[in-house]
Amino acid sequence: MMKAVYNFASGPAILPREVMQAVQAELLDWGGRGYSVLETSHRWPDFMQIMAETEQLLRELLSVPDNYHVLFMQGGGTQQFAMVPLNLLGDKKQIDVIMSGYWTDKAAQEARRYGAVRLAADTLSEGATRLPDQAQLDISPQSAYVYYCANETIHGLEYDYVPQSGAVPLVADASSNLLSRAMDVAAHGLIFACAQKNFGLPGLTVVVVRKDLVGRCAPHWPAILNYQSYADTHSLWNTPVTFAIYLAHRILKWLKDQGGVAAIEQRNIEKAALLYRAIDESEGFYANRIAPRFRSRMNAPFSLRNPALEADFLASAQEAGLVQLQGHRSVGGLRASMYNAMPLAGVQALVDFMHLFMHRHG
Amino acid sequence: MMKAVYNFASGPAILPREVMQAVQAELLDWGGRGYSVLETSHRWPDFMQIMAETEQLLRELLSVPDNYHVLFMQGGGTQQFAMVPLNLLGDKKQIDVIMSGYWTDKAAQEARRYGAVRLAADTLSEGATRLPDQAQLDISPQSAYVYYCANETIHGLEYDYVPQSGAVPLVADASSNLLSRAMDVAAHGLIFACAQKNFGLPGLTVVVVRKDLVGRCAPHWPAILNYQSYADTHSLWNTPVTFAIYLAHRILKWLKDQGGVAAIEQRNIEKAALLYRAIDESEGFYANRIAPRFRSRMNAPFSLRNPALEADFLASAQEAGLVQLQGHRSVGGLRASMYNAMPLAGVQALVDFMHLFMHRHG
Repeated sequence: MMKAVYNFASGPAILPREVMQAVQAELLDWGGRGYSVLETSHRWPDFMQIMAETEQLLRELLSVPDNYHVLFMQGGGTQQFAMVPLNLLGDKKQIDVIMSGYWTDKAAQEARRYGAVRLAADTLSEGATRLPDQAQLDISPQSAYVYYCANETIHGLEYDYVPQSGAVPLVADASSNLLSRAMDVAAHGLIFACAQKNFGLPGLTVVVVRKDLVGRCAPHWPAILNYQSYADTHSLWNTPVTFAIYLAHRILKWLKDQGGVAAIEQRNIEKAALLYRAIDESEGFYANRIAPRFRSRMNAPFSLRNPALEADFLASAQEAGLVQLQGHRSVGGLRASMYNAMPLAGVQALVDFMHLFMHRHG
Repeated sequence: MMKAVYNFASGPAILPREVMQAVQAELLDWGGRGYSVLETSHRWPDFMQIMAETEQLLRELLSVPDNYHVLFMQGGGTQQFAMVPLNLLGDKKQIDVIMSGYWTDKAAQEARRYGAVRLAADTLSEGATRLPDQAQLDISPQSAYVYYCANETIHGLEYDYVPQSGAVPLVADASSNLLSRAMDVAAHGLIFACAQKNFGLPGLTVVVVRKDLVGRCAPHWPAILNYQSYADTHSLWNTPVTFAIYLAHRILKWLKDQGGVAAIEQRNIEKAALLYRAIDESEGFYANRIAPRFRSRMNAPFSLRNPALEADFLASAQEAGLVQLQGHRSVGGLRASMYNAMPLAGVQALVDFMHLFMHRHG
């Protein structure tokens, strides 16, 4: 039998093994139909039922209120960086951004094409080692919305609270932690997430948006970037990413079978605690510089006291079946991503390896 | 052994069986790495090599000159309906469209947001049963580009020549026939195609664009719709659709093994001839209303003299293993799509069934 390999990539990332096995089993013959789900028309009734069920599973797992659309589109978070301002600015001129890291900065860069970006807080410029408290948020009632990134995948920062924005709609980039923890949808005007962290493949993006916020996009903007296009067509404005939706459907069913978001959140807490404890108890051999309260459960960046050992660490880890552990090119170092599909055994194997490596080089 | 099923969907559509088998075999363990290609980071060197090889295969199979970019993006043809004018209008105010069917009309509707649309010809308003001749094209030198749809998937119309546009750049929507026949890339300023007809899955879009046409998009337009974003980053502007690129890579290798575009074109000619002959020799039991010269090799819409038999035709065909034969909802009737991956045996099986059905009801 092949040795288990654990993949710590930050996305595209590890998928539930049971789901992958089921997908493989029916890849040539989808549910006895004699052809593959990869080959089916998006307008075939069997496929449209999968789309409807996928929406329903998301509504159920995330407790989405009825006055919200659940929309499927393409282009990932990067496309949302344009869509959110184009659709939500309306006749306002300004948005508030809680600047916390690489991904809020990217979103703000794109938003500046369309309006003024005001910083409701800025913990990036002070080093991105923590997130602001609610008390530190300075939100302008003139802003069309307040934007934050619920989990900064690269810096390894995750909110432990939902920012309160009063009457100003709150927008969350939840790309890397949607479905990994309880999230109060009703506190948000809009939440978006790409699928390649906790529910599948790049190409699929889910947008949960309060219905009254749809319909404000000016008609001179491209229809492909208008939420209304998707709301009006049950997300069939253009050909949807059929296989990614089919895979998300299976992953969401798997998540429900695991006990849903509440149950997976407990496992994610355990996994993160195990890894951060190993780092903290290494007496500085390993280090994570994030204030403990805001450490991400999904992505743990860490460094070695002696950075010259990094290449050895990565090569030895790979030999031990622990792969794709390098940090993002913008910050370097190492990073372990521990999405829903990463079993506790995977994090335990990483921690065991880290102990061994430390003793070899300590 | 299971009876063969032939899938005539218009896209997403049939894929080469040998490719599907190879993909299935390594779905859990990609080339011995111990994890799935679905789970790999797009920045992992092994995956970046696949992207580079996919571009190289496209360049080779399509004989793409060096002064053209080959770019990967998302959003299908619908996204290109916005991207083409946003990027190619420059300081011109007008474009020429050769109006031939549903898909040029869709493209023109979107283009009107950005400039004036002038019709260089219009065979849609006269019933969409043929395409214009070169002599009928009235092209304005004031236009930023001339736009045409190389194959109208819904109406079943396909050009048998490349429109000559003089000094005005020519833009082709080749979504449903790219790689199915020889195509003179150098005669075009830009060619785009979604992958779900002849090279894989929805979500992946290929744009082949002359390098001097990139860089004209005004900075107030979304970066995600600017070709420069993709040209500057080797199509890693955002997370690409990794699995769709991996699948395209395998399909392009399969196509090369089949003898490339020239060889597949011969097979496509044979397949189309077989089906249209069966229609034409049915003495009106079946009908296709397209002028023979412009009949699409990829998509053959047809009707029954007695439309009341349609439901029976579809149900009996499905029982015979011939699936997804209904026409597009906008035009009704029946449609058989015969992309590269459809074997001659599939079209033969359809023709045999059509004979049987005709004799049963004749």
